[in-house]
Amino acid sequence: MSSSKILETVITDIKWNEAGLVPVIVQDAISKEVLMMAYMNQDSLAKSVETGETWFWSRSRNELWHKGATSGHIQRIVSMHYDCDGDTLLVRAEQTGVACHTGSYSCFSNQIEGITGAAANDNSAASTTLSSDRFAMLNQLEAVIAQRYAERPEGAYTTYLFEKGVDKILKKVGEESAEVIIAAKNQDNDELRCEASDLIFHLMVLLRERGLPLDDLMTELGRRHNKSKQS
Amino acid sequence: MSSSKILETVITDIKWNEAGLVPVIVQDAISKEVLMMAYMNQDSLAKSVETGETWFWSRSRNELWHKGATSGHIQRIVSMHYDCDGDTLLVRAEQTGVACHTGSYSCFSNQIEGITGAAANDNSAASTTLSSDRFAMLNQLEAVIAQRYAERPEGAYTTYLFEKGVDKILKKVGEESAEVIIAAKNQDNDELRCEASDLIFHLMVLLRERGLPLDDLMTELGRRHNKSKQS
Repeated sequence: MSSSKILETVITDIKWNEAGLVPVIVQDAISKEVLMMAYMNQDSLAKSVETGETWFWSRSRNELWHKGATSGHIQRIVSMHYDCDGDTLLVRAEQTGVACHTGSYSCFSNQIEGITGAAANDNSAASTTLSSDRFAMLNQLEAVIAQRYAERPEGAYTTYLFEKGVDKILKKVGEESAEVIIAAKNQDNDELRCEASDLIFHLMVLLRERGLPLDDLMTELGRRHNKSKQS
Repeated sequence: MSSSKILETVITDIKWNEAGLVPVIVQDAISKEVLMMAYMNQDSLAKSVETGETWFWSRSRNELWHKGATSGHIQRIVSMHYDCDGDTLLVRAEQTGVACHTGSYSCFSNQIEGITGAAANDNSAASTTLSSDRFAMLNQLEAVIAQRYAERPEGAYTTYLFEKGVDKILKKVGEESAEVIIAAKNQDNDELRCEASDLIFHLMVLLRERGLPLDDLMTELGRRHNKSKQS
């Protein structure tokens, strides 16, 4: 099917609301954080598919809105899905700069407090601690790194790394792996725990700098795992 | 502020639409996949905050809807946020079972094809694979490494590493981190994905050799994360 034919089918599949709009969730394709929600009409959907960047319909200005046209904070589309009843779109995108007009990485920075059973986990916008998930900390760390990357808050160590650039991050990767080796040779597990944590942290900063999703690493590890089972 | 006082403030902060509703994005707190979008009115928001589970307003049935009340597929709320202009909510939740009434994990399973510039990325984990646990592979890998450590099956690469001993494992950690640095300098994300996966694998072999639990590393990362939030 041609591109325009595909689009035609999609436009019929989608349930446009009474104003001719559909809500669109935008998710960071790398960190998987939800960045914003906006609305598309048929024109902006067509423009988005054609250009590979997000176009919305501004309900306040009543006009087509190419996200980032003035700020430079464009969203390069990685994939688009619509849901089971066809009344919502999900765009996974690579966000340049920040998503929110306030200068925040994500538009969702106002937390609702006092939810029953969730209170203990309420202490950070980005954090979602789950005791049932051993690796929840990797999620949190990834979210914080993505936020630092977008917002560059002054005084934060991660901001310093991004400002210094990839060479500085790589020097740290090299340094921390050397320290892992030394700690293991010292047979000192406290030292090893600290140095291995440092190595993982700097590796995650590197992945964000390079725009490589952590999920891609997991897929790669899975590929090897399945191969090794056969050998 | 008391819980009801907080809720009162939130209800005033939110811009309810002409039907008295607000769209709510539900994200899996563990995998970070976007699961569904539904609508809340003031009653369902209050119920959600009170019970720690999601309640929506069903626009088709015109009634309060406790998600999972009949299917058992409830959503335990981990956190709730609203966006910069107060017209959308984001709920991070632990999903029991599946989110979609079709039996799918997520409601967003219809992909829009043919987007300019997005084709090359369509095979990445971020755009296609939906997994309820992003880091399940680390669990599996850890189990395989522990098994190799204990059983030493002939011909397995991990057995070879353990037989050669810690110096060999550390040489590989050094080698793989050098390869990570080279891949990043080459600006080659395919190479980086492979080398970073190798580094993680050998780091996990080292942890097993040293008897250091991966959970201790997560705890260490959590300690730093909490410290860095204060600074």
